[in-house]
Parts: sequence; structure tokens; C-alpha cells
Amino acid sequence: MVKFAICYESELMQSLFKTIALVARHNTPAIGEPLRRLAAMLEGMGVKVLIDEAAASEHAITTHPSVARDAIGKLADLVIVLGGDGTMLGVARLLAPYRIPLIGINQGRLGFMTDIPLGDMERVVAEMLGGAFVPEERILLETTVIHDGVESGPYLAFNDVVFSRGSTGAMIEFETFIDRQFVYSQRSDGLIVSTPTGSTAYSLASGGPIMHPSLPALALVPICPQSLSNRPIVVNDNCEVEFLLTRSADTRVYFDNQSDCELKEMDRVLIRRYRNTLRILHPEGYNYYDMLRAKLHWGQKLM
Amino acid sequence: MVKFAICYESELMQSLFKTIALVARHNTPAIGEPLRRLAAMLEGMGVKVLIDEAAASEHAITTHPSVARDAIGKLADLVIVLGGDGTMLGVARLLAPYRIPLIGINQGRLGFMTDIPLGDMERVVAEMLGGAFVPEERILLETTVIHDGVESGPYLAFNDVVFSRGSTGAMIEFETFIDRQFVYSQRSDGLIVSTPTGSTAYSLASGGPIMHPSLPALALVPICPQSLSNRPIVVNDNCEVEFLLTRSADTRVYFDNQSDCELKEMDRVLIRRYRNTLRILHPEGYNYYDMLRAKLHWGQKLM
Amino acid sequence: MVKFAICYESELMQSLFKTIALVARHNTPAIGEPLRRLAAMLEGMGVKVLIDEAAASEHAITTHPSVARDAIGKLADLVIVLGGDGTMLGVARLLAPYRIPLIGINQGRLGFMTDIPLGDMERVVAEMLGGAFVPEERILLETTVIHDGVESGPYLAFNDVVFSRGSTGAMIEFETFIDRQFVYSQRSDGLIVSTPTGSTAYSLASGGPIMHPSLPALALVPICPQSLSNRPIVVNDNCEVEFLLTRSADTRVYFDNQSDCELKEMDRVLIRRYRNTLRILHPEGYNYYDMLRAKLHWGQKLM
Amino acid sequence: MVKFAICYESELMQSLFKTIALVARHNTPAIGEPLRRLAAMLEGMGVKVLIDEAAASEHAITTHPSVARDAIGKLADLVIVLGGDGTMLGVARLLAPYRIPLIGINQGRLGFMTDIPLGDMERVVAEMLGGAFVPEERILLETTVIHDGVESGPYLAFNDVVFSRGSTGAMIEFETFIDRQFVYSQRSDGLIVSTPTGSTAYSLASGGPIMHPSLPALALVPICPQSLSNRPIVVNDNCEVEFLLTRSADTRVYFDNQSDCELKEMDRVLIRRYRNTLRILHPEGYNYYDMLRAKLHWGQKLM
Repeated sequence: MVKFAICYESELMQSLFKTIALVARHNTPAIGEPLRRLAAMLEGMGVKVLIDEAAASEHAITTHPSVARDAIGKLADLVIVLGGDGTMLGVARLLAPYRIPLIGINQGRLGFMTDIPLGDMERVVAEMLGGAFVPEERILLETTVIHDGVESGPYLAFNDVVFSRGSTGAMIEFETFIDRQFVYSQRSDGLIVSTPTGSTAYSLASGGPIMHPSLPALALVPICPQSLSNRPIVVNDNCEVEFLLTRSADTRVYFDNQSDCELKEMDRVLIRRYRNTLRILHPEGYNYYDMLRAKLHWGQKLM
Repeated sequence: MVKFAICYESELMQSLFKTIALVARHNTPAIGEPLRRLAAMLEGMGVKVLIDEAAASEHAITTHPSVARDAIGKLADLVIVLGGDGTMLGVARLLAPYRIPLIGINQGRLGFMTDIPLGDMERVVAEMLGGAFVPEERILLETTVIHDGVESGPYLAFNDVVFSRGSTGAMIEFETFIDRQFVYSQRSDGLIVSTPTGSTAYSLASGGPIMHPSLPALALVPICPQSLSNRPIVVNDNCEVEFLLTRSADTRVYFDNQSDCELKEMDRVLIRRYRNTLRILHPEGYNYYDMLRAKLHWGQKLM
Repeated sequence: MVKFAICYESELMQSLFKTIALVARHNTPAIGEPLRRLAAMLEGMGVKVLIDEAAASEHAITTHPSVARDAIGKLADLVIVLGGDGTMLGVARLLAPYRIPLIGINQGRLGFMTDIPLGDMERVVAEMLGGAFVPEERILLETTVIHDGVESGPYLAFNDVVFSRGSTGAMIEFETFIDRQFVYSQRSDGLIVSTPTGSTAYSLASGGPIMHPSLPALALVPICPQSLSNRPIVVNDNCEVEFLLTRSADTRVYFDNQSDCELKEMDRVLIRRYRNTLRILHPEGYNYYDMLRAKLHWGQKLM
Repeated sequence: MVKFAICYESELMQSLFKTIALVARHNTPAIGEPLRRLAAMLEGMGVKVLIDEAAASEHAITTHPSVARDAIGKLADLVIVLGGDGTMLGVARLLAPYRIPLIGINQGRLGFMTDIPLGDMERVVAEMLGGAFVPEERILLETTVIHDGVESGPYLAFNDVVFSRGSTGAMIEFETFIDRQFVYSQRSDGLIVSTPTGSTAYSLASGGPIMHPSLPALALVPICPQSLSNRPIVVNDNCEVEFLLTRSADTRVYFDNQSDCELKEMDRVLIRRYRNTLRILHPEGYNYYDMLRAKLHWGQKLM
């Protein structure tokens, strides 16, 4: 049987990575079976396998040591994520300080980052562990919030840092500076500061451009700006972006839309590129544009 | 002196409106003086003048009877608003049931609806009361919210009814129906249902088209929709729009962004044109496109 | 066999239309067979069938009288189009003066107007001729060009009248008037004046809104305007739109992108709703929003 | 008097540039006087002054040697342009092979590149020649057209390379490749490949993002694409962009909209960053964002 053949081959194959942690999307019963299968295959290749504590508990996996998510960075030399782009984002922020590479397997729809289909998982992962991969370095953002002269943070973000009005419905007013130069004051629903990775997420829905992951750039994308000439700006990723909230009833700053922080009038927020990049490993033959085309349905014509 | 001459003339002029209520923007000390001046001028024309209770109190005006805002509809046969478009919106919703016309005087920047500059107020108002005006009928929206089979409302809106995610940062998911026909399911920050009046407000900032006030139309404008082919749709204003919230952590529906209502998953919201239109009186020579051009800086070239 | 059964039934069925002309897309060999099949079926229902001269010649059909396209309006009381939206547009302009209804059968992809799939043609057409149809009235535009005081036209358009720079690459400059009121001067690649029918064609690609076919409206949609605040405007379809070309090296005005006319500086172009509407017949159960959703892939999510 | 004092000072000041060529916008009578004035001032500083042949002839300037525009690169070590951004573009393409810096003085409206107002010309230029300037390096594009296996070019562009349908009105169809990877096939009015310099020109009117001049990037911006998910993409400026025209009645490729080349079906066009950058000198205190804000009216609010 094909699957056995593959497993057999992979047992013979040497993995370049000795300790691999597996992380899975929460609350997804269907992910238990492929998770066990992947763990078994890796073990067969002589890899030491760690299981994300939450996944181990959710799927009652006791065959391998479980480890808290925030300890993975110190213990593993590769992380494989089963889930979607959302799971990937959370793991990316945790791993960024440790320079550990990531592989993403999509459980469900093709993801922008989770580009390996579950059905091909074993064959593709085995090949990749043997060295057949394309590494890609992606930047993250580091944010500091300054309230009444007191700094909090740094907060990491892989997709974007989003300033957004809350539930009062009123637009917010703010000033933006780049490298301490005043750029504009704006009245809008908010502002997105996006990495290339985030350029296909919320930024795109707000009219921002797609940016290739290798571009050393940040995009500032206004959300529903009142002034019709406020368009997205793309700047070098070594810029420091500063946001000063000048008028607001209820504003928050969101990191990858997974954590957030309340902002008050006259709070300042500083955003810089994080010192480390995150390394994502893709299968050989990976092509960013193929993925874009698949996700954005670019083959389709209207008429 | 010019001003006296004008006042004199206006004393001789007959007003077509016998009882006029004056409403002013709140918390605006500078508006007290022109308010008194206008009241005196109208009295000089033989008009019975009522002062909005809040304005009378804020500016300590005791020369004329004051009246609660929600009683104006029963007592006046014309309302003059001193303020901006925001004040106009609030008054419009209160007056809509009574078919009483409105005149808008802008205190500050030119408004889309408050089109008479404060400096010209006396001359222009005197002429208008004598019959030199252009009436314009504008539609309003009437909204019913259905939660667990229980209806609340109707809520009136003059600009727009806006469905919007709150402060959790997560996009909402909903279905839209027009005249009970399914239109689309959408994942986005929200949806704007706009009248022609509202088409130059939040709708425009979200990519909606400008609609001439005489157009019998509603626009459905998505806010940052995840699907890039979700574009604004304009439909006949006799359509019934239905919104069904299918996934949400925190969603509200806003009426002219001045009042709102919380929505839970599976709540339904029905939006129809309100039975009455609102009549706005403009000075003779008023031209909608002149106003648009001034507000949108259409004379300007980029280069 | 199902097909025979249907044919048999349809022979018994009375057609409400006594003389039906069939028109087919040019240069489409595959359309010959369904064209013959449809003609035979209609004849079996006792209908007098006329074949568009070009189609008769292209497919060597001699079983039925052929007729020049521009004579169809005087002879037929229904026209059935086999082809796509492009064929439909051309026929619509020819038929508009005669108030003859149209049915559209798509040969290939689903069209915005050609909504009956070829595979279902016989069953659906038979039912429609028996009365099971939903009529829809759609407006057309009538254009007059004034050069040096000399008028030419009227030119009809069903989708849109498009002013567009030619091959010099230079933007054009023009002024726009609505009902003789100045709207704006603009520097851009051009301007689209679109009917609701045209709102899902070129207008949509240029950022215009979708307009329901029943909306009595025209949209003015700028093409790549230099001023970022020049947005689409929707006005009542009883408006007269005037375009004055003030600066141009090479400009043309296009009617449904199927015929055109050169414009010189200071030429004026007047656009009005045409006196007749065009009636399109849809199968029972037709729903405009279902068609939109299918064409615009609204079911699709990005992630 | 102030002006004399300045001239006196500047006579004492040493210019860092020994031979300066002056270029002026064509067909602009008003530019003769400041051109003479600037030449005299430079001579007073001991600079050897060359006058662009066309300007010398147009304004009958015989006091200084005139030189053909395309010889300037070999003779001058600085070029000062009096005119607008259009004049600057043409000069930039001519100078690019020679690495000679440029200063831009705007005659008329503030330009994106011609950032020194005519009124301040003498004071600012004198200071800049003394060393008080901020240099800025900007990329250009180099284009090769391949027709039937025969290459033509290279053609330089400073703003953009634009593929655009001509006067037939029909959309064109093409394929795009980046670094030999297929990106998309597209049906549209055309495609803009823009440098950061060009990002505030035609690209912005077509929905492209603003890119800071220091960003090592190219933007691919579709013009009115039929597929609504075709959005602008920003890639690294070391990418090679390839355009393959697959369907066209009439298409041209434009370089800065100042020269162009006809394209036939199956022609291929290769676009790369040019080997040299162009150096623009700005006055001390120059700030890109100040200029953007002034040009795009970012201080303005709608309401």
C-alpha cells in the first residue's frame, strides 16, 4: 500500500531536524487523527517528537511528551503546525525570539502560509525533513505602547498592527509619523500597519496592496478614511512608525487580531521591525504566485 | 448700515411660516449670539419663535418660549437649525413624523445639508421666508430589530443604518436579503445601508457611490469585505433590506451613528423607506453639484 | 426519452408569440446545431421562424426564411438570441425602437443577460412561450454628438456610453453637466455613463456600483481620475448628461464598446434615456441576485 | 535690497559644481526671464553655465553656450530643471546613463520632483551649490521589447512603463511573469509597472499604493481589470517583470507617457531596474511627507 511504502522510505530517510514540535488548531476534533499519524511517522524517522500541550490534552495523546506552547521555542528545532493561517500566526509570534523554522499544514482550505494539504502531508513532510525545502524569511513587527509616559510591550505581530475604533461608532482622529517626520493627521475607522505577510489579510480587504514576502516593506493602510485622498503608503521596513491618538471615545490596538490593548487619547504607539525574522519552510517547487492565484481566484474571468 | 437695512426690509416682508422653532448645536458657546440675532429678526417679521429647550438653557435665552426638542414637531411649521450636519441629522429624525420643513445654517464649515453660511443668515433666511426657496424631499429609513422573535423599533435614520463589528476585532458574518431574495453571505467589518443623503458620509469613505438626493435609491455598501468581489449595490428605495447576523462576537447596528442597538447571532434586522420624506428648504439658486464640488474639492488637480 | 417527451409536450403548447426571429453569435460553428434544433422545435409549436441572415448564411440554414438583422424589428414579435452578452447588446440596440421582447440563451459561460443555459434551452423556451416568464424592462441611452454646431446621432447604447482617451497616452480633460448644471471638470482616462444593465460591465471594473435593473438611474463613473476625490455618482435616469471635451489629443466616444465616434476639442455630447425600454424575458424563478452571485463568485471566501 | 544681498553672498560662495546645465520647459514664454536670472547668478558664482539648446533658441539666450539635450550628460556635472515634473522626467531619462545629479525648480504648481518654488530659486540654489542639500537616489526602469524574436530597446522610464489598449475600446489580454514565474493572466485596459517615483502619478489614479522613493520596489497596478480580485502587487526592484500580450487589437507600451512603442499579439516585454540610479538634490530640510501632504491635500477634511 502506498502509505506504507512512503512510511518505509521515510524511515530510511534522515531528518535534518532532531526535535520537532507539533502544534494543532484548537477545538478541531478531526485534527486528532492526522496529528497522531504525523507523530508516528516522525518517530519512525528517528525524530524526537513533542506535542503542544493543548493538542495533547484535546486529543488525549500520551505517546509523546507534551510541552507548553511557550516552551516550544527552547526545546524544538522545527515546529510543524496543523491548522490554518490563524494557528500559524499565534505560533509565529511565540517562536520569533528563537529563530526556529515553521512548516504549515492546512487542515481545511489552502492557507496563505499553511500551504501543504493534509492529504499530502506524509510524503511532503518526509521530503522536506530530508532537505527538499525552500526557506523563506518573513519579518515581524514589534510594538511599544506609551501611556502617560509609561511604556508597555513589546508586542509582536506577524500580519499587522491595527488601530481601530471600538463600538461607539465614532471615527477616531490620529497623527502618523514615520522616522519622526509628520505624515498626516487622519479621521477614519483606523489604520493598519501591515507586513508583507499581512498584506493578503485585513490590509487587502481595506484596499492595501499585495506585497511579496521578500519585500523589505511595511504598508500603512487607512480604514475608511474620511479624506478621499488618504491612500495606502508603502515604506521601507527599517522605518519607525509612530501613531498618536488625538481624538477617540474607544480605540484599541490589535496584534494579528489575536491580542489587543486599549488606547486613550494622547497615547503613542511605536512600531518597528522585530530584530529576528521568522523562517517558514515550503516544499520544493513552492511558488508564491501560484498560491496567490489559487487564493484570489485569479484564473477566473467575470464574463 | 447694511445690517439694519436688511432687518428693516425683512420686517416689511411677510413670512410664509407663522411658527418657527430654532435648534442649535450643543456645547457651542459661539452660537448664542447668532441664535439671539436670528430670533430677534424673526420676531421682527411677525413670526412666533420657539427656542429648543437645550439651546435656551445653554445660552440663557428667556426672550422667547422654549420647547423640548421632541415637542417641536407638534408646535412649529418650520425649523431652522444652526450647527452642522450632525445637528441636522438628529433633528431630521425627530421631525420626520410631522412633515415639517427644515432650513440648515452652518456654524463653521459648509455642511452637506447646512448650506447657508452664518454670515449671510439674515438676508438669506428673510428671503426664504418670503418664498424664495427650493424645496427638496429626502427619504429616511425605518428599521426593525428582531431578537428571539421579539421586535424592537422602529428606529429612524436619515443618513444610514450601519452594521458594524465592535471592539473584539473579529470580522462578522451575515446574510443579506432584498425583498426576501437572498443576495449574499459576507464576512466583513460590517455593512452600510445608506440613503442618498448618507451617500456623502460614511458610505463614501467605504467606497460607496454618491447618489443624488432625488434618486429613489438605497445603497448597500460593504465595509472592508474579505471577498474582493463584494462591491456596493444600489437598489430601489421601495425595497426591503433584511440583514441576518450569522456569526459575531460583538456587533451593533447604528442609526446615523447617533444611536445604536446591540445585535446577537441570529438577530434579524429589517430596513424600509420611512413613510414620510423630510423636506429641506434651500435658498434660491441652490445647486447640489456646487455643494458637492465645494465639499469634495473637485476643482483641485493633483499636479 | 426525455427530450422527445418535452418536444411532444411543446408541440401541443400554444406559443404566445407567433413570429420569432433567431439571432446567433457570429463566427461560432458550434452554434449551428442548437440553432437548427431550436428552429425545428419552434416550428413544431406552430411558430413562424425567421433566421438572422448572417447566421443563416454562416450555418447554411435554408429551412426557414432568413432576414437582415435590421429588419427583424418590423417582422418578429419575439427575438431569441443564442450567444453571449455581446450579441445581446447589438440586438438590443437594433430592437429598441420596436418594443419587441428578447430572450437570451448563453452559448458558453452564463451571461448577465443571456441567462438560459443551452442545455436547458428547449424545455425552458417552451415553457416561456407558454407564458411562464418574468418580463423585465431595461433602459437604453440615446446620445447626440455636437461638432461645430452640427449634430450627429442619435446613437443608442444599452450598457454604456464611454468617453475614452485613444492611443496617445495623454489624459483628457472635460467638463460634465447634469440638467445643464455644472458638475465638475476632470482630468482622467475618460468617463463612463452607465445604465443599470451596464453597471456590471466596464463600469464595475472602473469602480462603479452595481445597480439593480429596475433602478431608474444612470451612473457617471470616472476612469482613473487624477483627482482622488472624483468618485462615481448615481443620478436619476431622467437627467440629461452633457460632456464637453476641453482638452484632448485623441478621444472617442463608444456605444456599448461596439461602435464609436471621434471627438475633437470643444465637441459636446448629450446623453438621455431613450424613449423606449427594452423588454427581456426571463424564465420563471429568475432572480437577479442569484445571477450576480454566480457571476461575481460571491459565495467564495478568501481564507 | 534683499535680492542683491543674496546675490552678493552667493558670489562669494563656492559652488561644488563647476559646470551646470540649465533646462527649461518648452513653449513657456514666462520661463525666459528666470532662466536668464539663474544663468547670471550662477555665472556670478564662477560656474560654467550651459543652456539647453531648445531653451536658448526659444528665449533667444546667447550669453552662454547652448548645448543639445542629449549632450548635456557628457558636459555638465549638475543639471537644473526649470519647469514641472514632465520636464524632469524627460531629462531624467537622458541623464540616467551619466550619473549626473538634478535639481528641480517648479514653474507653476509645486511638483512631486520639482520642489523648489521659482520665487525662492536664487537663495535656495545658492545654498545648495554650497553643499546644503539632501541627495536622494531614485531607480529607473529599463525595458526591452521582443517582437518575432527581435529585440528593441532598451527604453528607459523614470515613472512607469504602461501597457495600454489603444483606441479600439476593447480590453486587452495578457500574461504576467515575475522572475520567470507565472503571476496571472488578466483582461483589462492595461497594466502599469511603476517605480516609487511613478507611484504618485498614473499608478495612484489607477488605485496603486504610494511608495516611498527609498523603497527598493516596483508596483504592478492593473488598469480597470475585469476580474475584481486583481489588485496591485508590490515586488522587489531586483525582479524582472515580463509581459506577454496574448490578445489585442491595438496596444502600446508607454515610457513615462512620453514615448511609446506598438505591440502585437505574442510580443513580449521585459522590464528591469536600470543599472544606474538618478540622483535628485533637495534643499536642506526637504521632507518627502511634507510634499505628499501638500500635493494630496491631506490636511483637508471632508466635513
